[in-house]
Amino acid sequence: MIDYDKPREACGIFGICGHPEAAPITYFGLYALQHRGQESAGISVVKDGTIVGHKGMGLVSDVFDMDLLKLLAGGCAVGHVRYSTTGSSVLTNAQPFMVRHRNKSYAVAHNGNIVNAHVLKNELEEAGSIFQTTMDSEIFLHLFVKNLSLGFEQALVETVSRLQGAFSIVMLTSRGEVIGIKDPYGFRPLCLGKLNGNYVLASETCAFDLVEAEFVRELDPGEIVIISADGIKSIQTPHAGHSAFCIFEFIYFARPDSIFFDQNVYLTRKAHGRRLAEEAPVDADFVMPFPDSGTYAAIGYSEASGIPFEMGMIRNHYVGRTFIQPTQSMRDFGVRIKLNPVHKLLKGKDIIIIEDSIIRGTTIKTRVKALRQLGIGKVHMRVAGPPHRFPCHYGIDFSTRGELIAAKKTVEELKDYLGLDSLHYLSIPGLLESTGVEHPESNFCKACFDGCYPVAFDDSLTKECLEIG
Amino acid sequence: MIDYDKPREACGIFGICGHPEAAPITYFGLYALQHRGQESAGISVVKDGTIVGHKGMGLVSDVFDMDLLKLLAGGCAVGHVRYSTTGSSVLTNAQPFMVRHRNKSYAVAHNGNIVNAHVLKNELEEAGSIFQTTMDSEIFLHLFVKNLSLGFEQALVETVSRLQGAFSIVMLTSRGEVIGIKDPYGFRPLCLGKLNGNYVLASETCAFDLVEAEFVRELDPGEIVIISADGIKSIQTPHAGHSAFCIFEFIYFARPDSIFFDQNVYLTRKAHGRRLAEEAPVDADFVMPFPDSGTYAAIGYSEASGIPFEMGMIRNHYVGRTFIQPTQSMRDFGVRIKLNPVHKLLKGKDIIIIEDSIIRGTTIKTRVKALRQLGIGKVHMRVAGPPHRFPCHYGIDFSTRGELIAAKKTVEELKDYLGLDSLHYLSIPGLLESTGVEHPESNFCKACFDGCYPVAFDDSLTKECLEIG
Amino acid sequence: MIDYDKPREACGIFGICGHPEAAPITYFGLYALQHRGQESAGISVVKDGTIVGHKGMGLVSDVFDMDLLKLLAGGCAVGHVRYSTTGSSVLTNAQPFMVRHRNKSYAVAHNGNIVNAHVLKNELEEAGSIFQTTMDSEIFLHLFVKNLSLGFEQALVETVSRLQGAFSIVMLTSRGEVIGIKDPYGFRPLCLGKLNGNYVLASETCAFDLVEAEFVRELDPGEIVIISADGIKSIQTPHAGHSAFCIFEFIYFARPDSIFFDQNVYLTRKAHGRRLAEEAPVDADFVMPFPDSGTYAAIGYSEASGIPFEMGMIRNHYVGRTFIQPTQSMRDFGVRIKLNPVHKLLKGKDIIIIEDSIIRGTTIKTRVKALRQLGIGKVHMRVAGPPHRFPCHYGIDFSTRGELIAAKKTVEELKDYLGLDSLHYLSIPGLLESTGVEHPESNFCKACFDGCYPVAFDDSLTKECLEIG
Amino acid sequence: MIDYDKPREACGIFGICGHPEAAPITYFGLYALQHRGQESAGISVVKDGTIVGHKGMGLVSDVFDMDLLKLLAGGCAVGHVRYSTTGSSVLTNAQPFMVRHRNKSYAVAHNGNIVNAHVLKNELEEAGSIFQTTMDSEIFLHLFVKNLSLGFEQALVETVSRLQGAFSIVMLTSRGEVIGIKDPYGFRPLCLGKLNGNYVLASETCAFDLVEAEFVRELDPGEIVIISADGIKSIQTPHAGHSAFCIFEFIYFARPDSIFFDQNVYLTRKAHGRRLAEEAPVDADFVMPFPDSGTYAAIGYSEASGIPFEMGMIRNHYVGRTFIQPTQSMRDFGVRIKLNPVHKLLKGKDIIIIEDSIIRGTTIKTRVKALRQLGIGKVHMRVAGPPHRFPCHYGIDFSTRGELIAAKKTVEELKDYLGLDSLHYLSIPGLLESTGVEHPESNFCKACFDGCYPVAFDDSLTKECLEIG
Repeated sequence: MIDYDKPREACGIFGICGHPEAAPITYFGLYALQHRGQESAGISVVKDGTIVGHKGMGLVSDVFDMDLLKLLAGGCAVGHVRYSTTGSSVLTNAQPFMVRHRNKSYAVAHNGNIVNAHVLKNELEEAGSIFQTTMDSEIFLHLFVKNLSLGFEQALVETVSRLQGAFSIVMLTSRGEVIGIKDPYGFRPLCLGKLNGNYVLASETCAFDLVEAEFVRELDPGEIVIISADGIKSIQTPHAGHSAFCIFEFIYFARPDSIFFDQNVYLTRKAHGRRLAEEAPVDADFVMPFPDSGTYAAIGYSEASGIPFEMGMIRNHYVGRTFIQPTQSMRDFGVRIKLNPVHKLLKGKDIIIIEDSIIRGTTIKTRVKALRQLGIGKVHMRVAGPPHRFPCHYGIDFSTRGELIAAKKTVEELKDYLGLDSLHYLSIPGLLESTGVEHPESNFCKACFDGCYPVAFDDSLTKECLEIG
Repeated sequence: MIDYDKPREACGIFGICGHPEAAPITYFGLYALQHRGQESAGISVVKDGTIVGHKGMGLVSDVFDMDLLKLLAGGCAVGHVRYSTTGSSVLTNAQPFMVRHRNKSYAVAHNGNIVNAHVLKNELEEAGSIFQTTMDSEIFLHLFVKNLSLGFEQALVETVSRLQGAFSIVMLTSRGEVIGIKDPYGFRPLCLGKLNGNYVLASETCAFDLVEAEFVRELDPGEIVIISADGIKSIQTPHAGHSAFCIFEFIYFARPDSIFFDQNVYLTRKAHGRRLAEEAPVDADFVMPFPDSGTYAAIGYSEASGIPFEMGMIRNHYVGRTFIQPTQSMRDFGVRIKLNPVHKLLKGKDIIIIEDSIIRGTTIKTRVKALRQLGIGKVHMRVAGPPHRFPCHYGIDFSTRGELIAAKKTVEELKDYLGLDSLHYLSIPGLLESTGVEHPESNFCKACFDGCYPVAFDDSLTKECLEIG
Repeated sequence: MIDYDKPREACGIFGICGHPEAAPITYFGLYALQHRGQESAGISVVKDGTIVGHKGMGLVSDVFDMDLLKLLAGGCAVGHVRYSTTGSSVLTNAQPFMVRHRNKSYAVAHNGNIVNAHVLKNELEEAGSIFQTTMDSEIFLHLFVKNLSLGFEQALVETVSRLQGAFSIVMLTSRGEVIGIKDPYGFRPLCLGKLNGNYVLASETCAFDLVEAEFVRELDPGEIVIISADGIKSIQTPHAGHSAFCIFEFIYFARPDSIFFDQNVYLTRKAHGRRLAEEAPVDADFVMPFPDSGTYAAIGYSEASGIPFEMGMIRNHYVGRTFIQPTQSMRDFGVRIKLNPVHKLLKGKDIIIIEDSIIRGTTIKTRVKALRQLGIGKVHMRVAGPPHRFPCHYGIDFSTRGELIAAKKTVEELKDYLGLDSLHYLSIPGLLESTGVEHPESNFCKACFDGCYPVAFDDSLTKECLEIG
Repeated sequence: MIDYDKPREACGIFGICGHPEAAPITYFGLYALQHRGQESAGISVVKDGTIVGHKGMGLVSDVFDMDLLKLLAGGCAVGHVRYSTTGSSVLTNAQPFMVRHRNKSYAVAHNGNIVNAHVLKNELEEAGSIFQTTMDSEIFLHLFVKNLSLGFEQALVETVSRLQGAFSIVMLTSRGEVIGIKDPYGFRPLCLGKLNGNYVLASETCAFDLVEAEFVRELDPGEIVIISADGIKSIQTPHAGHSAFCIFEFIYFARPDSIFFDQNVYLTRKAHGRRLAEEAPVDADFVMPFPDSGTYAAIGYSEASGIPFEMGMIRNHYVGRTFIQPTQSMRDFGVRIKLNPVHKLLKGKDIIIIEDSIIRGTTIKTRVKALRQLGIGKVHMRVAGPPHRFPCHYGIDFSTRGELIAAKKTVEELKDYLGLDSLHYLSIPGLLESTGVEHPESNFCKACFDGCYPVAFDDSLTKECLEIG
């Protein structure tokens, strides 16, 4: 049961080189990154001079077992978890993508979205390339192989120079190298760590914590690192001069225990909540998350405002893939199957509910209605981020403006639509300043809030901000 | 991955009579009771004058699909979820237990433990009965059938009079009756609700919320209710005069949104936390659950003490059944696979961690050690219940005193063993008074804390309290 | 895809005592008996003084794997394969049936049908017994346990004396005994073998061949053998004085390499074919089986008549459980999916097709039609057994006379119905004499041919032959 | 349990164009061709202008169900079954192979082996192609796409001209064409049929019989047929002037009801047996297949010699994938698990056993030994084909001479090795003449017998016969 009120993320990646247990470590790395994608999982390793791998639909723990990991014996590995979309979920598009070329083999896993993919594909097809998947990884590998006459490193640099958009990539070669690549704007995260002297790469530092690796640093925008038995080599390709890190990683995607820009995500979310209490105070009996993703902002709001914190919606921890139709009499099925409000706590009370984002608004509307049925007092909503008014072209799945309710309604209209007594969003400056990151205005992509797209995604657009409609 | 530091509960039951969608409603009822048992699930219905059913290993949503529920068409149903034990998990012991006898059929599901089961079984075997399972339900049915010559109702009364111990039972007959039974001490919960004019039975009121039934009342100790097309009939069998409701339902088992004795579980747990703050105050930077089950008590403790509330251990929401061995380098595997402490939040801070119970203590010990490795300040633990010193003989799985660390160590010794700076438990009076229940001393079984067993479970014991060793 | 033109058999049983690899030997014994039942398979062993077992739906090789067999470590075992019926296939009815009684446990597997089951069940239910299955094994165990006060052996004898009908039984006790039982008429087979000094029991000798046991002898009608560490003990219960062995074992059920009454089944079937050639000669280009079950009779017919033998219908060896609907254009789907006639061989030829039995005739009718479409000459059918005119009440699944086409039509009418040029059956004397068994008239049950039922199956019938309608 | 004494075939293919039930017809076509490959199965169809498909490991009936076939709605389809190899069985290599190129998509399935694959692959990789599989189909598609600038038909012709070796191919385009291709020597079969006015392609005519299509003709060597809504178009590419059809299709691979060169396979095998009786007569009590693949030759031998035909080895029809280890006492496990000799028939008799080929000889050796243990008389083996002395380079899996026992031993030595009283092979002229095909010497590849390879498979070899070692 996918929550369409939440954006969906575009994958987690992991890589390790020079460790005798590369596959199990990658398994646990992906395990810690599972929140970034639950559709499919895959691991590729170098074994006896060639790349072998396994991938399947489902969670990492469903796709792999001990026997499989034993088959994937080898010292270098890359892995991938893919996010869950509706409908088009097919094994063909699971990653890492593996190919053979001239007695060598390569495996590539990526996170992001290449905006000039169709241009590059046309070009490659003109030259006779055939494609088996719809994945950017396949395009990357076609380009890379075509560039190999320039030498291995130059081929990487040249390939990266042709790609436009958001991409963090891990690549494995049958020679036993693991390559990490971050696009020139650094849209999507990629972190470098160290485990018993071996380098590891992961989308988030929480993966290092689980495998007990030490966090070294994040890759720079446009940086390529080549990790092998000889150690690590960094190549800096041309880049933007500043970064455009997806600010939604702080707001929603990343695990609270991860770190970006030296800032802990948990503490950043609390800071958003504190700022929100300053920007949009209101009197109430208590403040509560609605129910999960705003938890840390709600704690921050409670602290700053002195209004008590409660967790008034009880989650069913065993909600799985139920395909049973509700009975005739179950009108609130869609809400109650996951969450049940605590009647005795909420009845007659004025409350502040904290969300981190509103995409379509449909689930929120239903949940507010369910609260109202309990005979609650006032319901104030505070959102720990600015309104989502623009689609993301860099890999986050809120694709069209039509789906974004904040693009269609004013805050006042939205308040009425959702059945609230008041509704306030965190301001863009409030969001940026409370991240704790220095010079936040030149470090984040916030196009979904203001329409200023760092990289043009069609011909009519050249880094200009879209006019807000 | 079973948490051996938590007691495991003995099943959830549900029943409904006279509703055209009895099986799907039972499905959702069990879905809401899933926290009471994840090992197996089963539903029996009356279809064309006979009882048919399905049961299987796993969660309700794994065991049933729409096709199965369609096969289980019928107006009366009972259902069961069973808790997860180690090793002996077998389908044979899944419930409801169904039998045929003289052109009639019966299905029985129960929650609890009959302490004179071996005596009754011997008696029945003397008379030639054979047994296929090790379940109390099978004994109940043998006795019931033997008593049928007394007439249906009297057979029920007579059967109940022979059983000693804790038992809440739902029973289905092929004539289309659903019977609910609560033992004379009312150890285990059983609630009566109403849905579109039809009566329903469930272990907890949270099941009524999901199926949108109205909560009517709890069954009385020793009460039998017979629900049929003709309405409901209540029979009061001899009982104790007071009740011995398992106080651990309030502390740990029940879902926070459920209600017993007119008290909401969430608010009761907060009250435990408040009382704990009064009984055992301590100075610290913040208070936090450790990590889940003490959440509501931690909110109460924070409120009463004014010390900020934090959630400093991040749960991996995708922890499933992983059977992958940790790698050589993963020393903290067992802890980290589920939870990761937020370094930046915790480093150098004095904290209060709130638990609701300590059974074996092994997981807690490891988690405290993991916290210490972060370079934390002082670690104070407060437990929102008294020390567990005695095994439960009424169906809760902390079977021997040898497993109960509080039976072997003083609080001071335990503090040292767990690596804490201080450790305090809630007192028994503090626990009872903060439930909000009137005359709590005569309404609860608290034998696991004080050894006063309401029902004798062996011959040498007659309702006396065990001497604390 | 069940062939409704073939009768279905009622199970294969196996037992072994005193061998360290009892479970794997039972596995292979059942493997060799798989033709007797494909619906479910089960094995029970004595392990650490108690009986444990596993059973499941499907073939022996689907139900068991090496890990399961290792769990079933123990020196004594019994096993069972169950035949495939339509609709009511449920795991509940899989065997062996296991129960506990007074610290002992028992497992029973049987082949046959107890005709007074309903009488016994009523009696037991009056006395308070409850039933979980519809299997005769459960009745056997109830009776046996009730008789245990007489002592173990006498309880067996007394129990057998109460059962009427066809039953070959293997029973396992937690003390480490394997008991073999044959009913007083010896309807169903049960053979005794020896393997490395240990006794084994099996429905057919082909099981001994696979496990490399030596065939000792068949059990006598009414014989009970008790096999234990102390060797073997035989008890002769009252019996009929003659036997009523199901002659259909020779004609169809048994594997051709098995032996009964010192006669090999393969050679017996050839002898039926030879006799058929004498009784019903006809001129033709060749004789062929139609296609499988009459193979050996066809070889015999060819030898005796000098008419060449061919195998003109080609079987698809990979026919499995296909649930795909035929396309619009596939009119002969039901026939062709399994078999394809060899056009070039058959075209314009006169042929004799050999069957061993005709139950409903529907499949045969369709196959003859398919042959006719090839432009064949004359089609003569010869059946290597007499017409089936009466249902079997002893466990073979041609239950009602309405299904038996030979009960409704004369041979002449049947010839026309099936679209044949001629049709002849083997005579009853021809069948009996060509078995090679001495005094065949007093050794076989042939009730399905002549209506003379050795054991009464309802009150109006006392061993009289039914009048042929 | 793979029989290493039998060569394994390289796939079955099927295609249909212009029929509303293209996928189910392809399903049944593959079902009839299942004997050509059991490892994997796949079907691709044109649906809404693009190619979609499904493939999986296992039998056709395991891989597909009704729901899947409904998803594969469309009027044109191709399908494939793949043979079973050991170890390297992976889904990646399942066919049809599907790719996208410039808004079009193509699916290809093939049977055979392209001997210059490595040369073509090197060439393509030089030009930047990357490969995901090790299949010849992928090479074919790379070449084809590179040639597309020549126009569609010329691209096909040019691609075929570059391939050397054995290949029968079906190809599907997203425009709704099905293309059939046979290599210039016609090594592997490909037949054209007609179903309700639509053309179909299949490896063998037995597939036409099942789907009730009419057999039109075999494709000519070097022929390309393009089937579309407009009917059929045939293109003749340069070819050898004669054919080199794999004679092993007649001896072993093809189903007995199939037809090549206007000869029925069943009758051809009988003719081999008759000729064998003339070339190598011997006196015996009876002649029997050993046990399956020589059945038709044995019938022919029996007819020509007048020696009775028997089927003295009984097959267990339920042999599946058993992974259970034999017990200590089961010395003849490997033989008996599949086959059991009929003791009473064989004991003391002189017999002739008919095989169609001997590859490694290990299974035969063990089976002969098992016969000897019964106390049999003389055992004469007659093989209905010449000795296998040379590996096949055109797709049949008897890869190295080291595995071919007839390449290492004289017939006399082999007789002793196998434990026979006499051993004779059919002569090459005898084989060719008894096929019934005109000018057999210029129509068959018989390189495995005489080392005369029609197409060079390495640089040192140019259509010369290898010297027999």
